[in-house]
Amino acid sequence: MPNPTAAMLVIGDEILSGRTRESNMHHLAQRLIEHGIILAEARVVPDEQSRIVAALNDLRAAYDHVFTSGGIGPTHDDITSDAIAVAFGVAITHRADAMALLAAHYDRLGLPFNEARQRMARIPDGATLIENSITIAPGFTLGNVHVMAGVPNIFEAMLAWVLPTLIGGDPLLSQSLRVNRGEGEIASEFAALAAEFPDLSMGSYPFNIKGVYGTNLVVRGTEPARLDAAMKRLAQIFA
Amino acid sequence: MPNPTAAMLVIGDEILSGRTRESNMHHLAQRLIEHGIILAEARVVPDEQSRIVAALNDLRAAYDHVFTSGGIGPTHDDITSDAIAVAFGVAITHRADAMALLAAHYDRLGLPFNEARQRMARIPDGATLIENSITIAPGFTLGNVHVMAGVPNIFEAMLAWVLPTLIGGDPLLSQSLRVNRGEGEIASEFAALAAEFPDLSMGSYPFNIKGVYGTNLVVRGTEPARLDAAMKRLAQIFA
Repeated sequence: MPNPTAAMLVIGDEILSGRTRESNMHHLAQRLIEHGIILAEARVVPDEQSRIVAALNDLRAAYDHVFTSGGIGPTHDDITSDAIAVAFGVAITHRADAMALLAAHYDRLGLPFNEARQRMARIPDGATLIENSITIAPGFTLGNVHVMAGVPNIFEAMLAWVLPTLIGGDPLLSQSLRVNRGEGEIASEFAALAAEFPDLSMGSYPFNIKGVYGTNLVVRGTEPARLDAAMKRLAQIFA
Repeated sequence: MPNPTAAMLVIGDEILSGRTRESNMHHLAQRLIEHGIILAEARVVPDEQSRIVAALNDLRAAYDHVFTSGGIGPTHDDITSDAIAVAFGVAITHRADAMALLAAHYDRLGLPFNEARQRMARIPDGATLIENSITIAPGFTLGNVHVMAGVPNIFEAMLAWVLPTLIGGDPLLSQSLRVNRGEGEIASEFAALAAEFPDLSMGSYPFNIKGVYGTNLVVRGTEPARLDAAMKRLAQIFA
């Protein structure tokens, strides 16, 4: 069975304006790889409904899963949940189970469960809640779209909850070899080896650490024996 | 005049596989804001020609500028320049001026100017070179697309070279106020203020530093007097 594919949709003016450094993509990529899901694309769009809807409809048609981050808080610029409802053509309401979770949470904290906070219980029809162990306000899964918070520790907690519910594929493995030679020196032999192993993906990544130029050679695939064979040949060539 | 718009296209399996953390987007976003260009979208695609071509053709039609990062080195997985040529429907050849730059560079270093290194002189027809003060191998501008390296210090050097050649717009300004209250508490008053200033963009970003919850309120726009007026009202409301 081929590995399932996924896309990430980051929703946030704060990323595109340079105010905030995007910091969930790297974590998502690593967790998906372990789960055998291929992250095949990522997009960042601003807080504008038409842009969110268009990107979401592109991505959910093209990939097995879409993970969104950002825009599900209580303020007027948090428009992700409404945009998801529009993209799917479904209604969105204050859902009873989400209201109950949040009411109990603010009651414990002794804070008013006001209109802004109630906004976080607005969930598109047909969705399943994603648990938020940090600040309670839930994410949700609708169809193949998993809607999560942008705050990194909440994003990570939601992903940890949702990932075990998804069917993964064969683990995606990688091995790497560091050589103290520039890319331009190893390129032709590395390309020849890549051609010998068409079932593997091979990439080279230059580095410069304290004035030493070198290259990390990375081999990716799903068959451990093939990776081992390629790494053995790599070591012979570049030892 | 409205501000010019831009998109970023990150080309790299290493980002999507979780091997490398993307680190040029934040820098690009900040430099563009200063130059009065709005970063309106960013995408990350893998090292596959059809995916690069499709994303590039989408983005260059939709925005005034496209900045790409990654995939212009000497190895077999560096396929960006060829993909750009395909997207524009032009030929790509070893260009004489790029060959001369690189030949002189490797001559100075006492390294062979081999076939792999010559690959970095392959430039689509009609492009203008972008100077690379770090490792010499040039980027290029073709139409409204600026093709740059993925290694951060080279990306930054190329951007510093290309940005002064582009017409910017009014500087995009922002001011922020930090309040030690949660988003759910300030949301309704903040939304009312945003409605009073429809020409400005207002966003709220929660934080939790050492157990203290709070919110950064950010106001963005191009008219200094309007930003000052909004910040004055914000300070009155949340003082």
